[in-house]
Amino acid sequence: MAATPADVKEYPNSYVFIIDMPGLKSGDIKVQVEDDNVLAISGERKREEEKEGAKYVRMERRVGKFMRKFVLPENANTDKISAVCHDGVLTVTVEKLPPPEPMKPKTIEVKVA
Amino acid sequence: MAATPADVKEYPNSYVFIIDMPGLKSGDIKVQVEDDNVLAISGERKREEEKEGAKYVRMERRVGKFMRKFVLPENANTDKISAVCHDGVLTVTVEKLPPPEPMKPKTIEVKVA
Repeated sequence: MAATPADVKEYPNSYVFIIDMPGLKSGDIKVQVEDDNVLAISGERKREEEKEGAKYVRMERRVGKFMRKFVLPENANTDKISAVCHDGVLTVTVEKLPPPEPMKPKTIEVKVA
Repeated sequence: MAATPADVKEYPNSYVFIIDMPGLKSGDIKVQVEDDNVLAISGERKREEEKEGAKYVRMERRVGKFMRKFVLPENANTDKISAVCHDGVLTVTVEKLPPPEPMKPKTIEVKVA
């Protein structure tokens, strides 16, 4: 699960991170901002508890801890991040800061000499 | 998604197939028995519909059709199969047929000659 795949999309007003997390619930997932510009998503998938008399015939699904980190662009607003997990897919939305106001031309009054 | 990972567990009374299917709902998944002893699980994951102005910065999550097939053991009861999808993980339970009755020793009456 260390290499759980992710998509990143850019919208006019936001960045969206979509990460496969089958079998994890919202409570198992941690979404953090580190160093002011790194989005860190971590979690842990545990093997289902064994019932009496179970034995594995095949074991392909990865369990354990995983982490994905993404460096956020300069215009990401780290105060406006939301995350939702649905059907084993986590979607983290980071809003963009509004673009800086365009510099207005400065008008100098022309005096009559 | 063609190679979505699966675990297979054997219990005293059943076989359980656990398959990662992040982002799929029950309606997107088909569970069938082919040739009387092959469990075929198929589905399709579609890319989320694009909102206006979206562009992909990173695209790791696989989409498209996938299929997994498992040959069922002889004692699998193909009339007793149930499937449930939760948090992007599909669990298919196939009950076992009861073991055949042990052959009782046949007693031959010993007649007095």
